[in-house]
Amino acid sequence: MTEKVITYLEEHNEQQLRALYDFLSIPSVSTNPANKEDVKKAANFVKKYLDNIGFEHVEIQSTGGHPLVYGEWLGAGSDAPTVLFYGHYDVQPADPLELWDSEPFKPEQRNGRLYARGASDDKGQVFMHLAVFEAFMQTEGKLPINVKVCIEGEEEIGSEHLYKILKDKKEQFNADFAVISDSGMVAEEQPTILYGLKGFTGLEFTLHGPSIDLHSGMYGGAVRNPAIAMAHVLASLKDQDEVVQINGFYDQVEPLSQTERNLIKNVPGEDYKATTGIKETASENGYTAKEHTMARPTLEVNGMYSGYQGEGTKTIIPSSATAKLTCRLVPGQEPAHIQDLLIKHIEEHTPKGVTVDIKKEPLSAKAYKVDPTHPLIKKAADSYTKAFGKETVYVRMGGSIPVVEWIDAIYNMPIVLLGFGTPNDRLHSPNESFPLENYQKGMQTLVYYWDALKNN
Amino acid sequence: MTEKVITYLEEHNEQQLRALYDFLSIPSVSTNPANKEDVKKAANFVKKYLDNIGFEHVEIQSTGGHPLVYGEWLGAGSDAPTVLFYGHYDVQPADPLELWDSEPFKPEQRNGRLYARGASDDKGQVFMHLAVFEAFMQTEGKLPINVKVCIEGEEEIGSEHLYKILKDKKEQFNADFAVISDSGMVAEEQPTILYGLKGFTGLEFTLHGPSIDLHSGMYGGAVRNPAIAMAHVLASLKDQDEVVQINGFYDQVEPLSQTERNLIKNVPGEDYKATTGIKETASENGYTAKEHTMARPTLEVNGMYSGYQGEGTKTIIPSSATAKLTCRLVPGQEPAHIQDLLIKHIEEHTPKGVTVDIKKEPLSAKAYKVDPTHPLIKKAADSYTKAFGKETVYVRMGGSIPVVEWIDAIYNMPIVLLGFGTPNDRLHSPNESFPLENYQKGMQTLVYYWDALKNN
Repeated sequence: MTEKVITYLEEHNEQQLRALYDFLSIPSVSTNPANKEDVKKAANFVKKYLDNIGFEHVEIQSTGGHPLVYGEWLGAGSDAPTVLFYGHYDVQPADPLELWDSEPFKPEQRNGRLYARGASDDKGQVFMHLAVFEAFMQTEGKLPINVKVCIEGEEEIGSEHLYKILKDKKEQFNADFAVISDSGMVAEEQPTILYGLKGFTGLEFTLHGPSIDLHSGMYGGAVRNPAIAMAHVLASLKDQDEVVQINGFYDQVEPLSQTERNLIKNVPGEDYKATTGIKETASENGYTAKEHTMARPTLEVNGMYSGYQGEGTKTIIPSSATAKLTCRLVPGQEPAHIQDLLIKHIEEHTPKGVTVDIKKEPLSAKAYKVDPTHPLIKKAADSYTKAFGKETVYVRMGGSIPVVEWIDAIYNMPIVLLGFGTPNDRLHSPNESFPLENYQKGMQTLVYYWDALKNN
Repeated sequence: MTEKVITYLEEHNEQQLRALYDFLSIPSVSTNPANKEDVKKAANFVKKYLDNIGFEHVEIQSTGGHPLVYGEWLGAGSDAPTVLFYGHYDVQPADPLELWDSEPFKPEQRNGRLYARGASDDKGQVFMHLAVFEAFMQTEGKLPINVKVCIEGEEEIGSEHLYKILKDKKEQFNADFAVISDSGMVAEEQPTILYGLKGFTGLEFTLHGPSIDLHSGMYGGAVRNPAIAMAHVLASLKDQDEVVQINGFYDQVEPLSQTERNLIKNVPGEDYKATTGIKETASENGYTAKEHTMARPTLEVNGMYSGYQGEGTKTIIPSSATAKLTCRLVPGQEPAHIQDLLIKHIEEHTPKGVTVDIKKEPLSAKAYKVDPTHPLIKKAADSYTKAFGKETVYVRMGGSIPVVEWIDAIYNMPIVLLGFGTPNDRLHSPNESFPLENYQKGMQTLVYYWDALKNN
């Protein structure tokens, strides 16, 4: 069955690529009010495509912001599983235009890559799904499983309305599992399953000393320096071995199993010195840089300031010092609880002579992880390997994807992150592109995957 | 002899005050090019006054900037000591004018104070000396000691040309000791001898991490955070008991004798909580706030910054972190040596994964101290007490006065800091004023002092 479908994709490649070109030519920049109609046009493109290939109940849902496209095909019967496929049709702005080698909204192939804004993030990957659904419908007259499609238009501006919709329309969107193709492989041609994301929490705090900046000669020796007090508080948070010193910080952390350490070991490592310009990596005592970035919690100071920042010297004791902190969390860590521990630690470590004022970061996210040995994951990995001819690696990521946390929180269903992008796609930057090899092999991966799930 | 002189001052008070008003009416703002001619006018006022009262070799010396007035009276003979009296006739700008209750360059008496820019800093205090010299000359036909007068016009802009002049004209300016009246008493009506000033040194350093700000989710766990590294370095410089932890920092510090601790104990203390708004003072373990501010070295962070400082959260690992440090030094501490120790400490405490870049502060000053039991000081204290009817206190100050260091370095002569200002004079601020009580009693102090030195 899969052969016929793949043959269809090969034979209709030019025709489908032309449709993808049309999709990519629409400047659906969600952040720019001037592109509002273009965003709508891109939504219509998706709706029409789904209509044409035989999806049902296809509709453009208004959200309060840019619309969301919903469609479903539930003809596989109640024995077959139902997938919720999420993607987004909006894109980042193309500026600065002068840095593009071809026009961002005139797709062009060069050196085996398709250049256009959205080629990788996320129109290209959304289109692969549409093309594969088409191939199944045209050759078999049906899909191997039931499918619900949710393609939003506000991902690049924070998915402002999505959480409410997912919550309000729980019955409509509910499924057995979700598939998202809005991420990437760890290296070119390296099939990659992303099976975990970190959560996060944060806060900002200010240490207040004297009511105004003071003359350091007159008051040095009588007044606690808020900048030095800040240094003491921040230094107390994490030791030089990168181990967080907050009481209870690691208490609920799910330990890293030998199985997972082996999975992480298999992931091709990033050459951090080359990509970041650092001389040496620094990771938590007992963990490799890969283990720490993927699977261990982190605490970072994102910004701090105190006193005089201009040229030369100003001999003052600053009136205050401020720092912004965020933690990336792993499964087991509750964001609100970790935030409370942080606050308690800071309050307890604030030295006499300064007072502390803490502002909680209102946004937070729980970490997400799916069991890498789950059959849904295993079958995705096998499909990747079959299409790319290479063992699939399993990675976790230090970042957060809000929609993943929301689907997890609201629907509590497994989420399979099937990313086909590569580290060289220049997402959000000039000359965004997507390798045509990944376009073809990615579609084959999807064909194998849907087929493998039909008997589930 | 002093009675006649003091009687002269009383009888000629109105006439002398009119001259002081004239002096204060000249807007000799050295920093404002538009006031260049006014500055010259103020220099001429001083020259003319010295000429009129019988000084010799009175001259306006060009400096490359604003002129300096020199004059001498050496008629006391070679057995009598020679004093170099230093002051300045330039003033700070008067802005913001709308905050003055009377015009800054139209002197006015209110509530026992004389209001005008320069009333305290330093025209008023310079004029007291001129008036006293006049009184001696008019009543006795001579001064009790030999006097050289050096009144500059660039103090408020950093005395740019003074060091070179003091060095180049060493023979002309040389004396047995120096007197400077450009400081204040610790409290109203509290005769105060300032017998020590702190030196200083400083530097700025940056810890460099990744070449650009990094995504904290992607790189947290692999890359050392420069802001946290900075916190560790700064926290290592001074402990929470305000003891500097730099190896060798205190090695050359002259210990604080019980005599000096007693002197400091007698000084009326500043209510730091009231004046600075802090809840609690913080001073070096084993020393009071007064002892630490006056007589123990300090280390302060004057400014620091790293990463994101805007509203809200930006989840980055900053590319770098910068801090500005200065130390206030006490006798025994060599600024260049302390700067080297600081550099060595910072280099040794910079953690792996970041590199350090240190910029030395080019300006520095050695601490100055005169033996508080030196007869020149003792006689000054006695003169104060006689005029003000109150025990004189002995203080050291955390600040630096460049001219003191230069006279010390070039001439190696004792310097007597006879200040008559008060903490309420609002130097450099709107509504600068000087208590008329201090004007009268200050002149009496000078009469007693010069007289007491005549038999030295």
